[in-house]
Amino acid sequence: MKIEHRTIEVESNGRRVTYQDITEEVKELIREAGVRDGMCIVSSQHTTCSVIFEEYVHDKDWNGDELLQVDLNRILDKVIPRQLTESDYLYPGPEHVAFLEEISKQTPEYPNDPATILNADAHIRASLFGSSQTLIIKDGEPLIGSVGYIYFIDWDQNRKRKRKCNLMMMGN
Amino acid sequence: MKIEHRTIEVESNGRRVTYQDITEEVKELIREAGVRDGMCIVSSQHTTCSVIFEEYVHDKDWNGDELLQVDLNRILDKVIPRQLTESDYLYPGPEHVAFLEEISKQTPEYPNDPATILNADAHIRASLFGSSQTLIIKDGEPLIGSVGYIYFIDWDQNRKRKRKCNLMMMGN
Amino acid sequence: MKIEHRTIEVESNGRRVTYQDITEEVKELIREAGVRDGMCIVSSQHTTCSVIFEEYVHDKDWNGDELLQVDLNRILDKVIPRQLTESDYLYPGPEHVAFLEEISKQTPEYPNDPATILNADAHIRASLFGSSQTLIIKDGEPLIGSVGYIYFIDWDQNRKRKRKCNLMMMGN
Repeated sequence: MKIEHRTIEVESNGRRVTYQDITEEVKELIREAGVRDGMCIVSSQHTTCSVIFEEYVHDKDWNGDELLQVDLNRILDKVIPRQLTESDYLYPGPEHVAFLEEISKQTPEYPNDPATILNADAHIRASLFGSSQTLIIKDGEPLIGSVGYIYFIDWDQNRKRKRKCNLMMMGN
Repeated sequence: MKIEHRTIEVESNGRRVTYQDITEEVKELIREAGVRDGMCIVSSQHTTCSVIFEEYVHDKDWNGDELLQVDLNRILDKVIPRQLTESDYLYPGPEHVAFLEEISKQTPEYPNDPATILNADAHIRASLFGSSQTLIIKDGEPLIGSVGYIYFIDWDQNRKRKRKCNLMMMGN
Repeated sequence: MKIEHRTIEVESNGRRVTYQDITEEVKELIREAGVRDGMCIVSSQHTTCSVIFEEYVHDKDWNGDELLQVDLNRILDKVIPRQLTESDYLYPGPEHVAFLEEISKQTPEYPNDPATILNADAHIRASLFGSSQTLIIKDGEPLIGSVGYIYFIDWDQNRKRKRKCNLMMMGN
């Protein structure tokens, strides 16, 4: 029985929701791990990111986003609107801001800009879509059909960030 | 350690969202696989289908759908309305239509009817509800409580289709 | 290869949505199980509960709920409004009420109060957010980042209840 860990690095665009197609990397890492039958967890460790299973669409808008992603953005902007100022959501609150600013002093990758903390929408969207996909591996391939793709989503639109997508393969 | 693959075939009704109770088949396939303790992934390989965990409701509407499913349909029709013409969503776009028509020529099970491609709502609903359930197996049974059921959902309302629900059991 | 089962007992408040932070218990049970590398399924066996991955927020409202939870409640009250009488949703229907009342006679923990059955909102929210999280375990810890937490949610606001959250750890 093999248990193999891998990581995919993803960079968000920092201006809108980032959808990153990671299907080929997931397939390649499964092959590299040598797991023929078993499972693969593809998981975000960030609370404003998700991993989803969706069709790849050939047509894109002017930003380069696939049309189904643009459609999804439009629906979410109505249901879970973007937090543009502190009156839109109760989050984060003064104590939490102090906590996040403390973290930002210790970690150069968290810039100390209070406005970037206004991302309640990204947190709620991430909870809703879930942080991971658990895939079945059969004959060395994930069972995702011929038109199925895996996307890593960064719901945070406030800043460009490097993100980690963790994979764990278990099986024979 | 056992790793066992199984498949459940599901057929959609092609006129409305299809909810298929697969609980008994899942339990039977777990027994057949002989896994007493471990896990079972129940997963759709289609990007317009989901697998959910929900209560079984004895009362049904005139279509034969359980009342909780009808309630869910009514909410989703407001939030992610059905795509009835090409102005409702940007999806699919001309290049993607050409791609899907190319597939339909090669595969007799994909009939070449452009109107059936207008299923952006089904794609978005499938992403939202997720494509799989990961169940704990204990003493040969999935831990789903006494009133918990597993449903395979086909969100696509445009055509009758045969679907595959994949299972993988891992454990002792 | 270890396969270990554990259970966390959670009690809901019975007046509003209950969010229970179970992160420390999950970490402790992983340590206790002795799994260094592998996976952990954290799963509700109840059809009105969910397990989610979200940021911990230091600031709370007067009820003691974290601000992000209050924000989420406000959004859900609009999209999937609380069932306050039988006209709001079709659920449950007469046959299902009779079934649930039969269960309540046999189990003292299900009090025979018809009004508590009006929880269609809780069922639909549970399906939407999912019943489980599948975590990667690496070096004895779940890969949930430095600000990631695991919450058990009881969406049922009608009665105070004891709930079971099941864990299964598999790995080396």
